[in-house]
Amino acid sequence: MKRIALLGSTGSIGTQTLEVISRFPEKLRVVALAAGRSVDLLIQQCKQFRPELVSVARAEDARLAREALGEPGPRVVSGAEGLCEVATHAADLVIGALVGSAGLEPVVAALACGRDVALANKEVLVTGGPLVLDAARASGAKLLPLDSEHVAIAQCLAGQRGAAVRKIWLTASGGPFRKANAEALAKASPAQALAHPNWEMGAKISIDSATLMNKGFEVIEARWLFDLEPERIGVLVHPESIVHSLVEYSDGSWIAQLGVPDMRIPISYTLGMPDRLPLDDLAPLDLVALGALHFEAPDLGRFPALRLAFEALAAGGTAPATLNAANEIAVAAFLAGELEFTGIASVAEEVMARVAVRPGRSLEEIRDVDEQARRAARQWIEERSP
Amino acid sequence: MKRIALLGSTGSIGTQTLEVISRFPEKLRVVALAAGRSVDLLIQQCKQFRPELVSVARAEDARLAREALGEPGPRVVSGAEGLCEVATHAADLVIGALVGSAGLEPVVAALACGRDVALANKEVLVTGGPLVLDAARASGAKLLPLDSEHVAIAQCLAGQRGAAVRKIWLTASGGPFRKANAEALAKASPAQALAHPNWEMGAKISIDSATLMNKGFEVIEARWLFDLEPERIGVLVHPESIVHSLVEYSDGSWIAQLGVPDMRIPISYTLGMPDRLPLDDLAPLDLVALGALHFEAPDLGRFPALRLAFEALAAGGTAPATLNAANEIAVAAFLAGELEFTGIASVAEEVMARVAVRPGRSLEEIRDVDEQARRAARQWIEERSP
Repeated sequence: MKRIALLGSTGSIGTQTLEVISRFPEKLRVVALAAGRSVDLLIQQCKQFRPELVSVARAEDARLAREALGEPGPRVVSGAEGLCEVATHAADLVIGALVGSAGLEPVVAALACGRDVALANKEVLVTGGPLVLDAARASGAKLLPLDSEHVAIAQCLAGQRGAAVRKIWLTASGGPFRKANAEALAKASPAQALAHPNWEMGAKISIDSATLMNKGFEVIEARWLFDLEPERIGVLVHPESIVHSLVEYSDGSWIAQLGVPDMRIPISYTLGMPDRLPLDDLAPLDLVALGALHFEAPDLGRFPALRLAFEALAAGGTAPATLNAANEIAVAAFLAGELEFTGIASVAEEVMARVAVRPGRSLEEIRDVDEQARRAARQWIEERSP
Repeated sequence: MKRIALLGSTGSIGTQTLEVISRFPEKLRVVALAAGRSVDLLIQQCKQFRPELVSVARAEDARLAREALGEPGPRVVSGAEGLCEVATHAADLVIGALVGSAGLEPVVAALACGRDVALANKEVLVTGGPLVLDAARASGAKLLPLDSEHVAIAQCLAGQRGAAVRKIWLTASGGPFRKANAEALAKASPAQALAHPNWEMGAKISIDSATLMNKGFEVIEARWLFDLEPERIGVLVHPESIVHSLVEYSDGSWIAQLGVPDMRIPISYTLGMPDRLPLDDLAPLDLVALGALHFEAPDLGRFPALRLAFEALAAGGTAPATLNAANEIAVAAFLAGELEFTGIASVAEEVMARVAVRPGRSLEEIRDVDEQARRAARQWIEERSP
């Protein structure tokens, strides 16, 4: 029986994780849940999974949850300390499925006390890669992927000797603007940018997919998850989103992982390791019906966000944290109609030039840089507004 | 240092195996070679690799080789006994790269005395699957693949739990007649049938690729190599020959192995296990330049040979040996202009109906059935001739 603590239980990855867990009660048990403000859904989840510990963002919601769950209910905590309590609760696996940089501190706490952590929360490794790796190395805890591309890579590496890896290739759907020209990109509306061809996701990650910033963040994640030099990470545009990633070996062999685009597949792989959990009711992958799988090189001219991510990795230290913070502000401004689509990468590039790179080996430093980058991004957007 | 005994050193797989071995003198050593009648090439190979033991088909060629190699040269033996001596020589790995059913007896001998065997010689498992598995199980020796599709499957299974396999999928290029209609197939000439789009191979295997009988034989091989029920083996037509095979798991994940069509890749994988041997001078796999990978269902109507292979597996015992023998006679007749292309499968089907299925658990029985099937095939071809 694997005891699971889940950070971010009411989000898209969180609810899908619980869906998978609910199918294997003889193998997986939810022992702790952390959510933000979706208290009603959290209460429902508590009734179904009966965790030992629960955390919410606000103290008043903790009271609400306690009343709703009655006795004997879970212990209910709140705030940043509550999050860290869930992250360090006695569990075999901590799922990091929060959104944003709020996930960094609890993940570091979990790793520091020896808990294996599976990460869907991109910002954790994008903002705190070296710090997170330090924590994992110090305790010997494992850092596991939960994202579809990174779980694909993990599967392509399973049973293989790491030394023989020549390069890993993350696939990207190319997003809704794969074929758009420069003019169309400049005019792209939030509604167009939100219409991802293959995956249903939240607004922020949908926009990041449209700019390819999301793929850039995944490159940064891969660099830390698999401890690979950036030049050994490549990106291939693959519009069907069936091949989730590939590993190229030194003998000319490539191993690829394929599947229908359904997050329950990678989630179940990481939850079930070393066993696979049979998922019988998925839409089957029918390569004959698909007919063809296409591959293109990403266009860094039209999609500079991907180039910026590689540049941030090369710059090292807090540069990826700066990129992440600037991007978050820029995406919000785009969604609010205050910035054109192509302005998102411009903001990120400008802010990266303005904010000095620091080593990024403490939470404080990363937080400082994050705030500085957000301020710089807001300022630059205001300056440019008519 | 891995000691290698190579059965069939002067054929296509044999020479490519030696090419790979020659690059890794610190890891791989040739200790025994067996060839047929290509004595000049064998003598050259002996000068380069300095094996301890060599076997040729004919006693007079053994004398020739002894004279040419002088003292201190390898021990030179001949005939079926010579072949078995090479197969059972002190080695860590025996490569079965003979052509035809002559490979069965030495492979069984190698396995029986505990030698791991890597098989490129299709007829061994097609004619003697149950017998070969019995020999491997009794001694604990391993049976390894050397064919591109089966090495792909082995790579897709590495590090994975076998119980989670839902199905394995062998890819087939579809051969030169992938798009040919029934009329064109009936009229197909040997020259057309020999023009394989992706692989350069001998005449027999090229014709088998054109009829899809070769893929059928690979299905039979896979059944024994991976000990899988026939219903868990599928075939996908993939004209680019880049995806060499795939494994479908119970959780909806598929793992695929890709590479340029170059036999040195699968050969090096099996020779190097558990390490990969870096092959730096291969043409790189460029998915972007390829643009697309296509998949189709095989058409069992136009290519009945593939259906016959599944039927032979279902019939069990010596049925695949009958199919193999009838096909060999039919292909020879086709190449000699005595049979139309579509007649190859007709001969095989007719002979399978005529020759009774036996358990196939002894070499004698398999040899009997083989002879009976060849006679039946010759007879049927003569009866049909104008």
